[in-house]
Amino acid sequence: MNDTERLLAIEEIKQVKAKYFFGLDNKDWELWRAEVWAPDGELHVPEFQAEPFRGFDMVLAYVSSSVGDQVSVHHGHMPIIEFTSDTSAKVIWAMEDRLFRTKEFPLYDGSTFLHGWGHYRETYVKTEKGWRIKTSQLTRLRVEMKKVF
Amino acid sequence: MNDTERLLAIEEIKQVKAKYFFGLDNKDWELWRAEVWAPDGELHVPEFQAEPFRGFDMVLAYVSSSVGDQVSVHHGHMPIIEFTSDTSAKVIWAMEDRLFRTKEFPLYDGSTFLHGWGHYRETYVKTEKGWRIKTSQLTRLRVEMKKVF
Amino acid sequence: MNDTERLLAIEEIKQVKAKYFFGLDNKDWELWRAEVWAPDGELHVPEFQAEPFRGFDMVLAYVSSSVGDQVSVHHGHMPIIEFTSDTSAKVIWAMEDRLFRTKEFPLYDGSTFLHGWGHYRETYVKTEKGWRIKTSQLTRLRVEMKKVF
Repeated sequence: MNDTERLLAIEEIKQVKAKYFFGLDNKDWELWRAEVWAPDGELHVPEFQAEPFRGFDMVLAYVSSSVGDQVSVHHGHMPIIEFTSDTSAKVIWAMEDRLFRTKEFPLYDGSTFLHGWGHYRETYVKTEKGWRIKTSQLTRLRVEMKKVF
Repeated sequence: MNDTERLLAIEEIKQVKAKYFFGLDNKDWELWRAEVWAPDGELHVPEFQAEPFRGFDMVLAYVSSSVGDQVSVHHGHMPIIEFTSDTSAKVIWAMEDRLFRTKEFPLYDGSTFLHGWGHYRETYVKTEKGWRIKTSQLTRLRVEMKKVF
Repeated sequence: MNDTERLLAIEEIKQVKAKYFFGLDNKDWELWRAEVWAPDGELHVPEFQAEPFRGFDMVLAYVSSSVGDQVSVHHGHMPIIEFTSDTSAKVIWAMEDRLFRTKEFPLYDGSTFLHGWGHYRETYVKTEKGWRIKTSQLTRLRVEMKKVF
């Protein structure tokens, strides 16, 4: 890539992740499928799952079922972006999330409010449709859970 | 626009919104007038007002009176930017705000602390002075209000 | 600088600050030394210190001792970037930080949790190794401290 191509790739990657957050907090799963994830994308949250969810359909089934009935707020910050080839990149995003659930959730010890801070460690791939998330691993520096009614 | 012109426009729009937040939380209304808003800019917060405030003077009269005596913290995140012409753009920003008021505020049910999360849906226009906010609509995913003394 | 060079400089400055935050919250001081600070960098937090810490070794001694045993979360937002020459820039970042300490901390009135919002006012310099932080001053709009056990 020349300089301009690299700058365009950086902007496109930022747009993809912006749509990740917008889709997640607005439950816009069509946006996720069309403009965010690679078809073979993987999501891994080690604190909750030993193995990644592999393939977009599995990722979506997990996420849509776990956040479906709640208000969620996920914000991303300050990416560290490193290109590993003209069509692949590694990115770390700082993040904060709040999950406001309407009923107790077993995954969070029965809590109804989760507040976390951490990092996404991701890889991106340039597909025929543009840059997409290939793998995403979320770890948190700290999580607070509360029972709020 | 060619690629470089589009990248420059993206950066300028980010600078405009950065100055929006800096001006808002530092009550720097001259910055708002000179570098942030189009003269015919509009602000709409549907949860509080049925109609937008139309024109910068009206926007400023409302905002400066409602945040004038408080500490406020507004942060913006992860814009989704779409150009609708060489001189116009649509942008969605994720946002979080905290308002720490010194006295009870009727608009917030008499609360003194407001904490919200949502999105700005905005349009930008390229004027003779550069890119400026033309319309801004703020909706929140969630708002919490408390009486804190 | 031409347009492309300026865009590249903006991206590099954002990468430097992203590594500042990542290094700070992951205690990766080698990253700080290698890719974030100029050797003669200065850090000043006026609410705590009358004079800046001058030189990277002094900055690191202060920061690593004051955050060494805690979980910290620092997020940066919406930079206002102004180049003062081809090799120097002024940047203001909005910020939020949370410090979760394991024991009472004299600097914070014996509190174990600090939550703040404010701005970094920084200068950057382009060295032989790339852009680096030359001076950083942190002021807060508001700070909340609590004793949480």
